[in-house]
Amino acid sequence: MSQFSYEILHIDSHTGARTGVFHTPHGDVCTPIFMPVGTAATVKSLLPSTLEEIGAQIVLSNTYHLYLRPGSELVARAGGLHAFMNWNRPILTDSGGFQVFSLGDLRKISDEGVTFSSHLDGSRHIFTPESVMKTQHELGADIIMAFDECSTYGCDKTYARKAMTRTHKWLERCAKAHENGKQMLFPIVQGNMFADLREESVKFVRDFAECGIAVGGLSVGEPSEVMYRMMDVIRPYLPENMPRYLMGVGTPDYILEGIERGIDMFDCVLPTRIARNGTAMTSHGKVVVRNGCYKEDFTPLDDECDCYCCRNFTKAYLRHLVNCKEILAAELLSIHNVHFLLKLVEGAREAIKSDSFAEYKRQFYAKYYAKKQ
Amino acid sequence: MSQFSYEILHIDSHTGARTGVFHTPHGDVCTPIFMPVGTAATVKSLLPSTLEEIGAQIVLSNTYHLYLRPGSELVARAGGLHAFMNWNRPILTDSGGFQVFSLGDLRKISDEGVTFSSHLDGSRHIFTPESVMKTQHELGADIIMAFDECSTYGCDKTYARKAMTRTHKWLERCAKAHENGKQMLFPIVQGNMFADLREESVKFVRDFAECGIAVGGLSVGEPSEVMYRMMDVIRPYLPENMPRYLMGVGTPDYILEGIERGIDMFDCVLPTRIARNGTAMTSHGKVVVRNGCYKEDFTPLDDECDCYCCRNFTKAYLRHLVNCKEILAAELLSIHNVHFLLKLVEGAREAIKSDSFAEYKRQFYAKYYAKKQ
Repeated sequence: MSQFSYEILHIDSHTGARTGVFHTPHGDVCTPIFMPVGTAATVKSLLPSTLEEIGAQIVLSNTYHLYLRPGSELVARAGGLHAFMNWNRPILTDSGGFQVFSLGDLRKISDEGVTFSSHLDGSRHIFTPESVMKTQHELGADIIMAFDECSTYGCDKTYARKAMTRTHKWLERCAKAHENGKQMLFPIVQGNMFADLREESVKFVRDFAECGIAVGGLSVGEPSEVMYRMMDVIRPYLPENMPRYLMGVGTPDYILEGIERGIDMFDCVLPTRIARNGTAMTSHGKVVVRNGCYKEDFTPLDDECDCYCCRNFTKAYLRHLVNCKEILAAELLSIHNVHFLLKLVEGAREAIKSDSFAEYKRQFYAKYYAKKQ
Repeated sequence: MSQFSYEILHIDSHTGARTGVFHTPHGDVCTPIFMPVGTAATVKSLLPSTLEEIGAQIVLSNTYHLYLRPGSELVARAGGLHAFMNWNRPILTDSGGFQVFSLGDLRKISDEGVTFSSHLDGSRHIFTPESVMKTQHELGADIIMAFDECSTYGCDKTYARKAMTRTHKWLERCAKAHENGKQMLFPIVQGNMFADLREESVKFVRDFAECGIAVGGLSVGEPSEVMYRMMDVIRPYLPENMPRYLMGVGTPDYILEGIERGIDMFDCVLPTRIARNGTAMTSHGKVVVRNGCYKEDFTPLDDECDCYCCRNFTKAYLRHLVNCKEILAAELLSIHNVHFLLKLVEGAREAIKSDSFAEYKRQFYAKYYAKKQ
């Protein structure tokens, strides 16, 4: 019997937003969920014990980065990614597809796979559906992703179709190369911003979805209305009985709009990346901690937050740390930002249970955008 | 009644090393103790909660840095350093003397004080004994240091005497300017590497020592034998009934040699600084984590250590983090290194209680230097 299953607890009667439990070999994940990103087998600046304290249920790690450094064979010899990075809850690895396509001139795509030069030392490598499955088997995450081609936003329909077709063929090869029962393979819906391609893609890939399906190639530069339209197009064709993962999405509004459109899983580097730049997400909108107005602000970042940072430190102190380029600034702001998104999805789960998700979203927006209104 | 007192628990019968308890307004400090350095109101990369977990009892912070950024008036308005940095155990601030003298061409010394240019923006400032007391009053540490002139190692005796005499005159002014009963002023013994000056200095400054005395100007480049000789020279004149603090000393051997010579308190940036460079202090000597030999070393940094880093991570993982310039490397190695020195002094306290400090030191050296022997 599979170690993976998805249990729907409740569907919001007004929006159709879902809350459920995703059972995995490393424990349960309550959905909707946000997954912090640990690119190089570390969620930047956060101890695993800190991540657990702030309620992270699952983290994402990047196959491309780990393939190059320290190498997936080494991770396998260390006992897999969970043991290597000391994270005993579920892990998801991406396929490296998005990263190698982002290399631009450094990569060449063919039906066989993608040949690319390492951004670290220029060495030549090839990723194929089969090699990417092998790498993800060695890393040993609970959830692994199919190797897909994410066509650039703005490309013409001919190219978008070509990339989608290639993604589908690669998916067949990924499914064939993936045989173990310990890891769950998520296929990825592509199709750029073309409604008919998106529909064609979701109809094709869902047959490969055993307990999870992903939507790729969104939030890549398109206007939000376009993104929402694509989600609405595919929604009727998404399987009900498994988690749906919207890849690379992590702003509060995109998360809420995704949840409203039946999405269960999200990931993004945003909370930790902006933390390292000295920016916080709060219930009253973004706070650029460096700003002079916080020089003598002896109140917490977010008066509605109960994270370690907000319980113990003031904006004046955080601003001082940012000004001094102290590592502690990145840590405290990362704690806050990741906690903030985890609280956002926790609140969404509760709201869905009481059929009040639309009201939850409305109230969040009212505060989050209050300054701008 | 003073909130400060020092209680000797035991004196090692063979070496004269002491263990005791230093009572302060923010709690007790068991001596001998190592104080991690939190230059800019943060022990670099460590959350205060993490510092507490690894057993830090007191931290040091730098007046020069805090005077420039964020300014001591701001810290005072924040409720003092303890509230500002969320550290509720004892704090010691230095006087800024060592930092401004280290500015070289950027400073000018007179009997009045030291005029200097900020290393941050070139702005001109003056530190006098009176201004430094005021700054330290605003910061609000439990223990504050007299403003002293630390003459350069290698200077001639005429200059060393001049700097010592100035230090003594400044001490008189500091004592006069310091009137509150909430903070304890530690006078500082100077005298460079001249035995007669050291003797003269300790005899002068001990009259100003109410509950604590410091030894400055050692471990500044001189051979260790010279440093030990200076400590032996002043030892007979150090008051028994108060803590003795050897400033800026933090290598394991200097700490042990200091304890053997009756020293109770130590501080140094070493454990956190080398951590950020990827180096660990272990019971088997230094470990440069980046070294290729650790690539597939799936054992902890130090097999005798029970810190969070050693309980949960391997050298191979730490090496990967260092190679990727991940912030987590600095955090985990800082946790280990600070914990290592805190364990070293904890072991010393236990050994002193059973009159076995010399044996404790011998056993530590046998392992620490095993590789080199």
